[in-house]
Amino acid sequence: MKVQIRQAIKSDAAAILALIQELAVFEKEPDAVVVKEEDIKAHGFGVNPLFQCLVAESDGQVIGMALFYPRYSTWKGPTLHLEDLIVTESHKGRGVGTALYKAFIEHAYTSGVNRIEWVVLDWNNTAVQFYKKSGAQVLQEWDTVQMDRETMAHYLKKKK
Amino acid sequence: MKVQIRQAIKSDAAAILALIQELAVFEKEPDAVVVKEEDIKAHGFGVNPLFQCLVAESDGQVIGMALFYPRYSTWKGPTLHLEDLIVTESHKGRGVGTALYKAFIEHAYTSGVNRIEWVVLDWNNTAVQFYKKSGAQVLQEWDTVQMDRETMAHYLKKKK
Repeated sequence: MKVQIRQAIKSDAAAILALIQELAVFEKEPDAVVVKEEDIKAHGFGVNPLFQCLVAESDGQVIGMALFYPRYSTWKGPTLHLEDLIVTESHKGRGVGTALYKAFIEHAYTSGVNRIEWVVLDWNNTAVQFYKKSGAQVLQEWDTVQMDRETMAHYLKKKK
Repeated sequence: MKVQIRQAIKSDAAAILALIQELAVFEKEPDAVVVKEEDIKAHGFGVNPLFQCLVAESDGQVIGMALFYPRYSTWKGPTLHLEDLIVTESHKGRGVGTALYKAFIEHAYTSGVNRIEWVVLDWNNTAVQFYKKSGAQVLQEWDTVQMDRETMAHYLKKKK
């Protein structure tokens, strides 16, 4: 079965969300996704898109995606961040992930950025090995920090 | 001495770069900064700015900054990423970092994002404790992955 990589369009939003939800289950956070199909449409396919997305299509169905957006390094300048690289379970092991990864790197290289970056769960050995084999560097000394909206409100109240 | 927090302007570029370089030395990567003053001007203060910056000014001098830009979470929607929170060594311990941090959180909260995020070096205990005390979550299981431009070219050549 032939797999085609193409830019996502607005009508892919439902398929994109299904892949996002599938990854959240895999990452042991099944209830973490608050984004809705309408959000995907508005955020990715409006006047000022917050992300870009490549999808892998096979037999008329979206079976994988690479979703990314620009970031800025104060050391290296403009970069691209790969937020999600997802292939649906039933199509894993056919090279679809590699094809999406390569298409993303091609896009990034052509765009002229000095760096691409993303994060990986340290227990996801398959992914860690895949990235290392491609020449990417896995940096273990940087920890991700996050604050949600409720905590922001709480912190601002406390600091008044 | 009174400290004022304000939006950075183009003529702050040299002071911003000096702070970036000071942080790179602290993070044991003194040669990592390839960005120049002209880049800061073009990337942050052009028609499509790649980042926003708040600076702390005291006695006419920029002594600290919070530099950030939008990101996108496929779980939570639009977020803001705090790339650098820096206070120059000679002005540390006076609450300037906290004032910048608070101003950033205020800006993020008002902008409506569901999450703010950043990274911290795991050996930088002062920073880790500061963030934890503010209510932020430090996630240790996510590793940062990066690929530089040279490696991108190498990978694409190999995969042809």
